[in-house]
Amino acid sequence: MRGAVIHAPGDIRFETLDDPQILHPTDAIIRTAVTCVCGSDLWPYRGVEPTGEPHPMGHEYVGVVEEVGGEVTSVEPGQFVVGSFATSDNTCANCRNGWQSSCLHREFMSTCQAEYVRIPNAQGTLVAVGQRPAEEFLPGLLAVPDVMGTGWWAAEAAEVGPGSTAVVVGDGAVGLCAVIAAREMGAERIVAMSRHEPRQELAREFGATDIVTERGAEGVARVKDLTGGIGADSVLECVGTGQAMRQALQSARPGGSVGFVGVPHEVAVDGQELFFSHVGLRGGPAPVRRYLPDLIDRVLSGRIDPGRVFDLTLPLEQVAEGYRAMDERRAIKTLLTP
Amino acid sequence: MRGAVIHAPGDIRFETLDDPQILHPTDAIIRTAVTCVCGSDLWPYRGVEPTGEPHPMGHEYVGVVEEVGGEVTSVEPGQFVVGSFATSDNTCANCRNGWQSSCLHREFMSTCQAEYVRIPNAQGTLVAVGQRPAEEFLPGLLAVPDVMGTGWWAAEAAEVGPGSTAVVVGDGAVGLCAVIAAREMGAERIVAMSRHEPRQELAREFGATDIVTERGAEGVARVKDLTGGIGADSVLECVGTGQAMRQALQSARPGGSVGFVGVPHEVAVDGQELFFSHVGLRGGPAPVRRYLPDLIDRVLSGRIDPGRVFDLTLPLEQVAEGYRAMDERRAIKTLLTP
Repeated sequence: MRGAVIHAPGDIRFETLDDPQILHPTDAIIRTAVTCVCGSDLWPYRGVEPTGEPHPMGHEYVGVVEEVGGEVTSVEPGQFVVGSFATSDNTCANCRNGWQSSCLHREFMSTCQAEYVRIPNAQGTLVAVGQRPAEEFLPGLLAVPDVMGTGWWAAEAAEVGPGSTAVVVGDGAVGLCAVIAAREMGAERIVAMSRHEPRQELAREFGATDIVTERGAEGVARVKDLTGGIGADSVLECVGTGQAMRQALQSARPGGSVGFVGVPHEVAVDGQELFFSHVGLRGGPAPVRRYLPDLIDRVLSGRIDPGRVFDLTLPLEQVAEGYRAMDERRAIKTLLTP
Repeated sequence: MRGAVIHAPGDIRFETLDDPQILHPTDAIIRTAVTCVCGSDLWPYRGVEPTGEPHPMGHEYVGVVEEVGGEVTSVEPGQFVVGSFATSDNTCANCRNGWQSSCLHREFMSTCQAEYVRIPNAQGTLVAVGQRPAEEFLPGLLAVPDVMGTGWWAAEAAEVGPGSTAVVVGDGAVGLCAVIAAREMGAERIVAMSRHEPRQELAREFGATDIVTERGAEGVARVKDLTGGIGADSVLECVGTGQAMRQALQSARPGGSVGFVGVPHEVAVDGQELFFSHVGLRGGPAPVRRYLPDLIDRVLSGRIDPGRVFDLTLPLEQVAEGYRAMDERRAIKTLLTP
């Protein structure tokens, strides 16, 4: 089969790879229907994270089951399936508590920009949608287990509730999906922080009521202006930089909450600042598995359309151009079709 | 009048001071019934915080109203009152949200180890208990607005709920009161981390089901042993050091919560560690005003007895010995009688 391999920062190649095999009786193999490039893939692409030895890339997938290991009974060949970037057995103590992305047997997916993918912990990870859905739903279903699930988690971690004010820091695909989530959870006012017009427009269509283009202290001051001087009930930090985290913490009101869902890079939170802010802070890899049935339903019923974050579709063999377009901010998110 | 003044680390003196006056129409003056020494008073006493120019000390008080400013109508001379270490107008946006210790007009009390005290924001801060309660209730009522209220807040911030497992880091007066709070909120298992026998005993009497004497990585390992390998639902961090915060974060299960209520001293939280832990973190000065009516009621009804944390009672003029006894861990907490 063929798939994407990163050789060095900026160097993504589409290569012939070994077909994945069932390695454990808990594995499944799927044929990829669609896959995509994630904002977090840009960390190694930009050299912010070391790339190390050449290795496959990608952790987002939907597809059709080809083969299952002997212990997998929940899905069968031919079914169309959706699954998280963090695999989970869905039976351990953490899974039972609803924290499947901290599953004791978790493996992070990392080879999904390819024609076929091995899924560890398939029994707990994969959710069958049944027959292959209509093409129009594929982008939305692909968004669910990563960017939409992560946006949902941002809103949950930030304790968005009916009538609340939510601020979304970050206008990438996750931030835009976080706007959808905040609206679905009943936020009355949703402030999207974005300085890119096409993204502002999509944020508004997804439910943002206000756009703030300023960043840093000025951005915080604008949020305070919009919130009676005290800050927002909920802030959804969807970037992962120190600057974004500071902005998020300072934008929340005393007693408000920050959900942070971008993997933090060189972020340290000062204990005394956090203390006197009274702000609650929770983040992590989204426990997507918990949300999957509900989010799949919202997509297939047409209630939400997170697939709109894909503004560039390329054949999988042009994966390198997919990275470039996102790196240069020509695309919000690139969908790849094998 | 006379009161305590800190001149330098280790140097507390009982001196003649000017009688406090009504400075603003929102002030009240109270005659101190009992006051005490707080664990946080030991930070400057030990030189961990600079002491600066000589200044009065103390932020815990209950007493009888002597005089009120022209805008104070909620309490009147002769009433016995309880009030927080953080004054609040109880009308601003933060107060209305229940975060009175982030009141926009907050002033921290700092002159309470004295015969008379000026209370700013008296209208919002003071809660009248009515006639002077029986002597036996004074220690409990004195504990309510600081150590008991702070322990309560630790349990709330750590999201203690019925049937949960709670770990209390710190066996000072706040930690011991946090045990009471965890029990009142329905925790099924309460682990007190303490290596001091008299404190272990009091923790057990307050509701602790398990005692862990180990600290650091060993302490974390013991908590994991007690919690099926994954950690506790709730951890109540009642110290304020980097070591205590690390221990607290590592003792919580994925998806668990840490409430931190000791003022952090040189504590930095690594964003990536917090991210992958899935642990929620919230702290700050306890919003005691919100809890006062309920906690006063629990004390006067005999349901809780946080006054037992006072294991040394001295006349106010021996305040210096009160500090020394706590510094040398001969006393958990010193009650002072003017």
